[in-house]
Amino acid sequence: MRTAFYISDGTALTSETFGHAILSLFPVKFQHKTLPFIDDEEKAQRAVEEINQAFAETGERPLIFHTFVDPRIKRIIIQSDGISYDFLDHYVAPVQAELGVEAQPKTNRTHGITADYNFRIDAINYTLENDDGVTTRNYGEADIILIGASRTGKTPTCLYLALQYGIKAANYPITEDDMDNLELTYDLKMHRHKLFGLTIDPERLQSIREARRAGSRYASQQQCEFEIAEIEALYRREAIPYLNSTYASVEEIAAKIMTTAKLQRHRY
Amino acid sequence: MRTAFYISDGTALTSETFGHAILSLFPVKFQHKTLPFIDDEEKAQRAVEEINQAFAETGERPLIFHTFVDPRIKRIIIQSDGISYDFLDHYVAPVQAELGVEAQPKTNRTHGITADYNFRIDAINYTLENDDGVTTRNYGEADIILIGASRTGKTPTCLYLALQYGIKAANYPITEDDMDNLELTYDLKMHRHKLFGLTIDPERLQSIREARRAGSRYASQQQCEFEIAEIEALYRREAIPYLNSTYASVEEIAAKIMTTAKLQRHRY
Repeated sequence: MRTAFYISDGTALTSETFGHAILSLFPVKFQHKTLPFIDDEEKAQRAVEEINQAFAETGERPLIFHTFVDPRIKRIIIQSDGISYDFLDHYVAPVQAELGVEAQPKTNRTHGITADYNFRIDAINYTLENDDGVTTRNYGEADIILIGASRTGKTPTCLYLALQYGIKAANYPITEDDMDNLELTYDLKMHRHKLFGLTIDPERLQSIREARRAGSRYASQQQCEFEIAEIEALYRREAIPYLNSTYASVEEIAAKIMTTAKLQRHRY
Repeated sequence: MRTAFYISDGTALTSETFGHAILSLFPVKFQHKTLPFIDDEEKAQRAVEEINQAFAETGERPLIFHTFVDPRIKRIIIQSDGISYDFLDHYVAPVQAELGVEAQPKTNRTHGITADYNFRIDAINYTLENDDGVTTRNYGEADIILIGASRTGKTPTCLYLALQYGIKAANYPITEDDMDNLELTYDLKMHRHKLFGLTIDPERLQSIREARRAGSRYASQQQCEFEIAEIEALYRREAIPYLNSTYASVEEIAAKIMTTAKLQRHRY
């Protein structure tokens, strides 16, 4: 199998995103290797040894997706047996020409600490402290309140919204006990404009719940169908925006919520 | 202020990463706008109206970072008043030539649901359920166990490791009660090879704790200095790898831990 390397003087997250986006277009399997924090010539030499070894072992030249600030490190890497792709190569010059401003490269520019950093930490803490529907007194501070049945993806989505966008996302689970005569509680009505619903196909819900509590009423087909039908009826009755998480990743759900609810992100 | 647009038929996360990496090189402020899920010609037309309006209002041509699978949508966007940058333009052809395999573009390739998706959800659930140091019976399942004083960044780091890399990260806080005769508990000793320590400069710790419990003993200079000194001594005595989170973002801490602890990610 051919090896793909993602290399940078920082976290290498940008190199990974760049490389994955390109490689995912091809129906080819790769061995992936990330080498972050390659920030001096000695580390670059060791990276080259690893690249050359991958070539020697597989007989196929490794693909290298990289970004470096220091041209000396870059020079060492591109002299390896791999094939180098630096996505800045083709774009810095045209953007510089358009802006009429000189580029000022610095290390760790993309994923280092920035002024808006505390927003994210506050958002994560907020989200963790408002993840159960028991504490509702902080809803005034929420950017959004996700509601839905248990195991529809609310918690991972809230955490992703906090980590990626600095959004304070509360999570209000609608449980079996709420099912008789289902309606919005007083606390939820007070913050109606912040509500966003998640739903899921009952068959998928059943299989997720079955994996957690096999054979329980909670995981039964009947219970899953009943909860989803009741909750979707509530969303429609109350005109709450909602989406179905069955075939969507956490990233997709979060991006859809940001757009639909017109949320202002606290981080770019 | 000039506007930067990030547009895609999917989440636009890749376009954002690409655009941010380039724009962060320039000392210029931008108004940022993300338009995800632009997946038909009508939505593309509305995006063009938004781009053209930004140009009309600012007098400066917006920069557009985009990726599209459907060439018809791309054609509509690049006919706007903005300046288009598609990072696939320069890289698909050379990679295709090297691999000798035709590219097969498909929508939502980078941030959609993939086979390894359940790994991440399991990792998030694991991390949330093992975030307090009270439950230690699941440490056999952990990929890593972060230890450290309260407010050194353990929880956000664990969540990021789970979301980004599918790593099961447990969190064991070392509290004031542990400070007399500080040593590893039996549970931690049993999983010694999984331990990773976080530390932080006492001044920074003090200011974070002060924001949460102003005037408390917990937030006092003396207490913060004492805890950090004792805990760092423990790390050294027990040869536990550790790092200082004072000047590092969650992304940087997580990437360093992945490398130092040689963790196998469950997701690429």
